[in-house]
Amino acid sequence: MTITITAFERSPDRGKGLARDMRVRWALEEVRQPYDVRLLSFKAMKEPAHLAFQPFGQIPTYEEGDLAIFESGAIVLHIAQHHAGLLPDDANARARAITWMFAALTTIEPPIVDREIARYLEGDQPWYEQRRSMIDERIRKRLKELSARLGDADWLDGEFSAGDLEMVSVLLRVKGSGMLDDYPNLSAYVARGEARPAYKRAFAAQLAVFTAASAG
Amino acid sequence: MTITITAFERSPDRGKGLARDMRVRWALEEVRQPYDVRLLSFKAMKEPAHLAFQPFGQIPTYEEGDLAIFESGAIVLHIAQHHAGLLPDDANARARAITWMFAALTTIEPPIVDREIARYLEGDQPWYEQRRSMIDERIRKRLKELSARLGDADWLDGEFSAGDLEMVSVLLRVKGSGMLDDYPNLSAYVARGEARPAYKRAFAAQLAVFTAASAG
Repeated sequence: MTITITAFERSPDRGKGLARDMRVRWALEEVRQPYDVRLLSFKAMKEPAHLAFQPFGQIPTYEEGDLAIFESGAIVLHIAQHHAGLLPDDANARARAITWMFAALTTIEPPIVDREIARYLEGDQPWYEQRRSMIDERIRKRLKELSARLGDADWLDGEFSAGDLEMVSVLLRVKGSGMLDDYPNLSAYVARGEARPAYKRAFAAQLAVFTAASAG
Repeated sequence: MTITITAFERSPDRGKGLARDMRVRWALEEVRQPYDVRLLSFKAMKEPAHLAFQPFGQIPTYEEGDLAIFESGAIVLHIAQHHAGLLPDDANARARAITWMFAALTTIEPPIVDREIARYLEGDQPWYEQRRSMIDERIRKRLKELSARLGDADWLDGEFSAGDLEMVSVLLRVKGSGMLDDYPNLSAYVARGEARPAYKRAFAAQLAVFTAASAG
């Protein structure tokens, strides 16, 4: 059955691979599943046809035969549970890898997203600098804790898993801030993720979409 | 095998059931699994013994034989996958229920948590009122979209599932703000969750901990 995902017709990050379809593309590349992409304009994302499927007007979505789901975390987990390569076979190790997926998305990512929202919504407010330093403090606390846990390991718990895929994806969102530089093991961890052939194929695929949209 | 979870010795919400151990208690009650609780002081949560297990110094955690995991979302999913009652049998319906878990935790909950963080960190700042109205606007957007999707259904996708457990838990965090009142179907949805016998047992159990700590 063909897998079809949705992605931005023209990603707001200009092809930097930070939109959430990247995580799904990366997962599909890790498990070597081909997929089709349906591109959506910002306008189409807010229209009834898409909202009937994705009530929050977001990308990505995932369709495969009769199955239609959304939320990149749920999609990555679905892919990981149905194909070998993203979750360990041992039941306990599997539960721990899934723990890291949730840690990435619900403990590490929120203050990082906050930083982006603040820039967007409050960037021209007089309080912005003060707000950003408060957010940065929250991010640094989490990075410090994560760095202490990772130590000198390659991945968070044994082999590379969907937990690492989500964590690296989340950390990439803050890479441009320079904050990762204070934690060499986290920088190296992110670099290991980016060096994976599956990551590179996924990155190239999403960049090609942006490049084509810009040329068109 | 005995299940042991951790919870606050004295919950900062004073027994209102908003701490994240409540979600795990509720899940365990839905699947009728007995559990032990290990209570942690704020001090103990930041000590090496707990950090070695939970790197971010949070509750709840979950131990069962050789398995030790954290992140309430991962724990609820683990419980749902190993006991009947929180996920449908049909594979596609199961994936959709898990989608709603992620929607609750990664799309709906972040602006709601933001509201609490802003009150705590910025409540005495001159910009606070303006900030709160920006956050409230983000929350209302999500509530409106969720309300439109729920319509007149009892639960988000067929029978009650772990997706509803997480969504109701997240919405309960914003109930005190009065914002739910604008969406009668969401208020009724939350009330349906609170009326479940399993919810009531879990609520009573966490309240008993706070009451005992206050009396002690």
